[in-house]
Order: sequence, then C-alpha cells, then structure tokens
Amino acid sequence: MAPLPPTLTRTETLTHLALSAAALSVLANTLTSPGEPPLLASLSLSVLAFSLTYSMIRWLAPTFVRHGFKGRDLCKANQPELPECMGAVCAVVYLIAIIVFIPFPFYKDIVAATSGGGNRDVVLEVQYVNEGRFLHRFPHSKLASYLSAIISLQTIALLGFGDDLFDIRWRHKWWIPALASIPILVIYFIDFGVTSVVIPIPLQPYLGELFDLGALYYVYMACVAMFCPQSINMLAGINGIEVSQSVVIALLLVLNDSFYLLTPYPHPATDSHLFSLYLLLPWLGVSVALLTYNWFPARVFVGDTYCYFSGMIFAVVSILGHFSKTLFLLLVPQLFNFLYSAPQIFGLIPCPRHRLPRLNARTGLLEPSMTVWADRRPHPLLVPVLHLLARLRLLKLTTGKDGEVAETSNLTLLNLWLVMRGPMRERRLAAEVTALQAVLGLAGLFVRHSLALLIFKEDNLGMPHL
Amino acid sequence: MAPLPPTLTRTETLTHLALSAAALSVLANTLTSPGEPPLLASLSLSVLAFSLTYSMIRWLAPTFVRHGFKGRDLCKANQPELPECMGAVCAVVYLIAIIVFIPFPFYKDIVAATSGGGNRDVVLEVQYVNEGRFLHRFPHSKLASYLSAIISLQTIALLGFGDDLFDIRWRHKWWIPALASIPILVIYFIDFGVTSVVIPIPLQPYLGELFDLGALYYVYMACVAMFCPQSINMLAGINGIEVSQSVVIALLLVLNDSFYLLTPYPHPATDSHLFSLYLLLPWLGVSVALLTYNWFPARVFVGDTYCYFSGMIFAVVSILGHFSKTLFLLLVPQLFNFLYSAPQIFGLIPCPRHRLPRLNARTGLLEPSMTVWADRRPHPLLVPVLHLLARLRLLKLTTGKDGEVAETSNLTLLNLWLVMRGPMRERRLAAEVTALQAVLGLAGLFVRHSLALLIFKEDNLGMPHL
Repeated sequence: MAPLPPTLTRTETLTHLALSAAALSVLANTLTSPGEPPLLASLSLSVLAFSLTYSMIRWLAPTFVRHGFKGRDLCKANQPELPECMGAVCAVVYLIAIIVFIPFPFYKDIVAATSGGGNRDVVLEVQYVNEGRFLHRFPHSKLASYLSAIISLQTIALLGFGDDLFDIRWRHKWWIPALASIPILVIYFIDFGVTSVVIPIPLQPYLGELFDLGALYYVYMACVAMFCPQSINMLAGINGIEVSQSVVIALLLVLNDSFYLLTPYPHPATDSHLFSLYLLLPWLGVSVALLTYNWFPARVFVGDTYCYFSGMIFAVVSILGHFSKTLFLLLVPQLFNFLYSAPQIFGLIPCPRHRLPRLNARTGLLEPSMTVWADRRPHPLLVPVLHLLARLRLLKLTTGKDGEVAETSNLTLLNLWLVMRGPMRERRLAAEVTALQAVLGLAGLFVRHSLALLIFKEDNLGMPHL
Repeated sequence: MAPLPPTLTRTETLTHLALSAAALSVLANTLTSPGEPPLLASLSLSVLAFSLTYSMIRWLAPTFVRHGFKGRDLCKANQPELPECMGAVCAVVYLIAIIVFIPFPFYKDIVAATSGGGNRDVVLEVQYVNEGRFLHRFPHSKLASYLSAIISLQTIALLGFGDDLFDIRWRHKWWIPALASIPILVIYFIDFGVTSVVIPIPLQPYLGELFDLGALYYVYMACVAMFCPQSINMLAGINGIEVSQSVVIALLLVLNDSFYLLTPYPHPATDSHLFSLYLLLPWLGVSVALLTYNWFPARVFVGDTYCYFSGMIFAVVSILGHFSKTLFLLLVPQLFNFLYSAPQIFGLIPCPRHRLPRLNARTGLLEPSMTVWADRRPHPLLVPVLHLLARLRLLKLTTGKDGEVAETSNLTLLNLWLVMRGPMRERRLAAEVTALQAVLGLAGLFVRHSLALLIFKEDNLGMPHL
C-alpha cells in the first residue's frame, strides 16, 4: 500500500469543489429564505464537513507524522507506519459545522431597545414562518442545551487530544468523559432539572407512575457519558472498526429520529429528535470521510480522540433528547464487549498492553491473540469456568504438558468472533462485526418501538394516551 | 537555577490544602444558602483555581518536557531548557472553574411538567432572594452569552494548543482568533443583535444619536477578537512579560468593573460588569499561579496558548459587556507595540525569526537586538526616516564603513525601551514595562470616566440622563 499522497488528485479536487459548491448554494438559499427547513441546512453543512474533512486529512497527515503522531499497523505483515490521531481533524471540522449551524434552527431574537451594557429592555421575537414539522425552529430556551452540548464536545476533544499526546494512564482515562459531561449536567441542573423517570407498568402499583431519582439521575447521566466514549474506545484494534461502528450507531440513531418526523405533528418529542439529527448528521459527514481512509487497508489511524468524541456525541444527544435507554439498545455489542472484557480489566486474567487479534503471516488471516499465564496460575475456581467456556467456543485455551492452563485468548469481542467463526482476513472481520452491530441495532429499535409498549404506557412515537 | 522539582514541598502542600479547604467551605456555604452573593463563589473558585494551577504545573511540567514541550531560554548565559506551553494547564483549570461556576449566578429554572423529550410545558422560576446588587442573579437570557464565551475560549484553547504543537505559520496564525470569535458572534447575532453605536455629541447633529453599523459591527467585533490575542502574543520574549501584562490588564478591568458595584443600584450596566468579573477573577487566579513560575528567572514558559487565551478573555468580556472602547484604553502599550512593529511585519525592514532583546553575556544586561540589512538596502525614502528615528532615540542604528545602514534594532516595545533607557537586567525590564502598562492603563481609566463625558452624553457609571 503506497503512503497517502499529501495533495488531492485533480479528480478529487473537482469532485469536492463541486460537492461544496452545491452544498454552499443550498445553504445560502436556506439562510436567505426563512421558509426553508433548517434540516436542509444541516444536510448541506454535513456535506461540506465531509468534503472539508476528506481534504484536510490529506493535507494535514504529513504534519501530524512530522510531529510524532504516528503508529505502526500491527495487523499487517510489514507493519507500516501510519499517521495517527486523525480524529482530531474530524472533531475540529465537526465543531465548526455545528457552531456555524446555530443561526438556522434558532429564531432570531432582536433586542429593539437597550439601556446599554447588554440589557434587553425590549425584545422583539422575529417570527419567521413556523408551520409544519420541517419548518419548525427551536425556542431560545433550547439554546442553552445546544450550547452545553458544544461545550461538552469541545471538552472531550481537548482532553482526548491530550490523551493521544500524553498517553494518559488507564485509571486516569476513565475520568476524561466524566469531566467532559460536567457542562451538560450543570446546564441540565440550572435549565431543566427534571429528575423523574417513568416507571414500567408492572411496577407502577408499588412505585407510582413517576419516580424522582433526584441526585441519582445526575449520577446516571454521568455514567452514560462515561460509558459511551470508553465502550467505543474498547471495541477497537483492527482497521476501520472504530469508525464503522460509529457510523452504524449514528445511522441507527438517525433512523430512530426519522420515525419522529413521520408522526402526527406537533408531537412532544419532535424537538429533541430534530436536535439529535442536527448533531448527528455532521458527525456522519466527517466520519464517512475518515472511514474512506481508515477502512482496510488503513492509511490513517483515528486516535482516542475519535472514539471519545464519537461516544460523547451519542451520550449527549441521548441525554439531552431523553432517550438514553434507546441508545443502550444500539450499544449491545459494546456492552457485551465491556462485560466480556471485565475479567481482564479487573485482573482475574492477565491483561497484556495490546489485545488486538494476531496476524498469522503465513496464512494472511487474523487469529485470536492469546494472553500467557506465564508465572501466574488461574484461581482454582476459575479453572473449570475457563474449560467450560473453551468447550462452548467462547474462549480459546491451550494447556501445557502438565495439563495446566498455559494460554487463553484475550477477552474482546473481536477475538471471540475469531474463536467462533475461525481465522479470517482483517477486512472481513471488520465487515462482519459492523454487520453484527447493524443487525443487533435494528433488532433493538424493533424492540423499542413494539415490545416496549408492553411495559411502558406510551411509546413516544405515538401521542401520550393520557 | 535548579530545575523545578516535580512535587510540592511539605510547606507548599499544607498552604495549598489550607487555601483550598477555606475556599471550598465558602463555596459550599454559597451553594446551600441562596442569600450569599455569587461574587463570593467566584472569588472562592478563583482561589481554588490558583492552588490547582500552582500544583498542576509542578506535577505536569516533567510530562510536558518528556513529550517535547520544551524550549531554551535565550536571554540566559547558559540557555537552560524549560518546560513550554504551561498556558495549556491554566486554560484547562480556568475552563473547569467557569463551567462549575454556572449554577451560582444563574437562577434555577425548574421544569415542573414535561410531555417528554425535553419539552418545557410548565416552567417554574425559582425566585431566590434577589435584592441588592451583590445578590443579583442573571436572568436566563444571559446564559447563552455566558456559554458562547466558554465556547470561544475553548476554541482558542484547542487552536492555540494546536499552534504550540504544530508551529503554525504566521500568515495562518492570524486566523486562529478569528475562528475562535465565531461562537460569540453567532450567539450575538441570534440572541441580541444590537448593531448601533452611540455617536459622540459633537457629531450628533450630522449623524444622529445612534448609528446602525449593521454587518460592520460584526467585522468590528471580529477585529477586536483578532487583535487582543495577537497583541498579547507580540509583546513577549522576556521572562514573565506575557503573564504580568495580562495580570495588569485583568486587574485594571476588575477595577473598572468595581466602579459599577459602587454606583446607585439598580444600574443598567451592573449585569455586564458582574459578567466581566465572573470571567476575569478565575483568570487572575490561574495567571498569578503561572506568574510565580514564569517571572524572572523563569522555570516554565507559557506558550502561545496562554497569550491567545488571555487576549481572548479580554476580547470576550469587552464585546459581551459592550465596553470594547474602554479595553483599547488599557491596551495602549500593545497597540503601540503593534504599530511600531508594523514596518517589520509588512517587510519594509528585515524581520528575523526572533526579535527578543539580546543578552550581553559580559555585563549580564539585556541590549536591543539588531536586524542585519545584509544583502538588502533600505528604500531610499526610508533612510532619512531611520536616521531621524535614531536621533530621537526611537531606534538604534549602526552604519557600515560606507555610511550605509548596516543594522537597526528590532522594532518591538521591549527593544525600544532598552534603546531609550539603556541596557538593563531582564527582571528590571519586565518590571518597568509592566509598570508602564499599569500607569498607562490607570490614565486610560481616568480618561474614560472623566473626559469621556465631554464627547458622550452619559458615562455608563452614572444613570443615563434621559
């Protein structure tokens, strides 16, 4: 694989100039005629973000390499050195896109009289055409939420980039998303403050219809914000998988949001799902651009910045849109990967620095990587469990001459997939796990919108049956 | 000078623990009793930010050095290598402080009924005690401004850090603050939108009382946001000067804000000056901590991040507080430095990479650094000007044997000061230029609050005479 050329080819330049020009003209039209839906502006900005990211990765990759942002691709025979941390480029382009987008979905409030110093003595609300779902604009009370989302995302970009640069230790890493969730939690506290959850129907006789979680609700939100970025970061190691899982999750969230654009209007959840679309579409734009370089055979790496940032976007839209339970239905592979990894993370089983699958240079296929028990022996209670898992093909296990456990496969979803399905090429592994993510996510959405009605009084797709 | 020890001494630990404990207890008290003024919370957070910055610089300096953030101190005989870019630590601590501060100055709006999805069907405004200036809390319409300030500051932190890392070229550097000003301009556009300026009394017969600048007002704001960070960045080169000028400017702005806490209450400008205090006090906290390490003899460098961030804070408070003209009165040395540098920036005079004063190793004194005309000759019209400036002691000039101009001093305020006052020690130069900043700033504030009444109908210290 030749290294990435630092300039665009003529065809690429023309394609992206044409795309950008088309997007810009739609955008200009949306800005000048208030009858156009903000969603159209969001789509055009996403296309622009796609082209900008595609070009900037090319232009900036050599600079990143020169300043030490590079890493070896361990799943290749020749282990080429690739530019690292291209997620930082994505994050910057994305942030510019969602900041520039602000005037589209929000009314313009004009202060007609001020006694100076920023006082709003007379405020005129400019009333644009505001009928129908697609022309809907947000009231200004939503502005604080939108801005707090931007602040949380910028914080994770800053800290994630710091992590890529300084290689922060694992036990400190956990706190990065927690720190980044403070802005949305603070704004939620002063600007909304609802901490009650709906109780499932079977439990309502005991707990009532609503249950006020109080401070626990903030702990819950912080946990969502801590889990999403780390879980994306953990399902990593082969070309393209970080980005492809993010793209699939984002697409599924967009699909879920779109359901709410088809319900009878006005609907109480329209706003929060438009909100979610406005944040997800530009992320799809930059992620698809990154994926073209990161898919097998990768020519750039994405860095922790990308994984954190991506997870934080999902956390932010689901927290501010009040659909964090739905999000977890889409993160089943990540949840499984986390639980399956737990024995290694908590030290029951030795945990090497890298757990990514191992390339068999002779066959060109990936095989599960193994952790060596070397001078350690598994806990006596663990031995039968390991043998049972091996028999169920949930683990690969080799024994020494004495019959003792010598090696077990590293506990990640990627290794497990190789244990169950046998060795395969890197591209195929990435494709299959991505497909798994899509299938499980679609099933999750089906559950959400059909079976959930059995335990909750209302689906927020329909009108509340009050 | 011994290198900075990576841990705090026992005395330092005890001092900072005691300081933090005191600040935390005041903070906890302010949070639980709504009768306490938010200003007290801001002060406690500033003390906390001071202690945190002081400690974190010590802990993180070796990590920064290990990852290549280091630079040589060119004004010392032995040119020691120092940790670079400690302004990034200041920026992160500061951002956490102003985000955590949000619940103090803003009322808590509680959404009492929601139809789901983040809708505000019934909103209760929790009315705390709200009498008197010091207990004043902001209405939620100010929240968007506060958040947009945070976003702009985070953007400059991200881009400034990128600049420190990638050494962006000068012609690209100019656009960093412009990019960072977009968030406040966008929020100003949709959430306030006043673009009229008050016309000075002598011109009112011709132009009317107010003049609507329209889009030009945004250009003006962007220029303020571009100028402040670059101007702080340009008045640099000797130990401590970047931080000490920032501390002086911040103190003068705090002094100016304090005037508005003494006027008859309620006053139309109280809000914007409280706003400014809330953003400036934590910056003073982190800057003073940095200054203890950066003052002569410096044991850390601050990096472009610090200069950009500092200038952006001044730009943001003055734009959102509508006192950008006052800010310029405090930036007279920076304005002068910029204009004096212009001939070198625009290439009339050769511009070497570094223009900082030169150490005379024999005397231990700093002398003006010189730019060599080598193979270039000054423009014939420029020669008499250079000689005139040299005669007025506004420039040092050496001629070759042929009488031609051989060398001229680099055009910076620091070199000019050395030309006028003669060679001096580095510490003294920093102290004198800082004192100059303070004296000119105080004079500027005097002009602002006395003479300005001659050309404007009202001082916003007094009530408008309507």
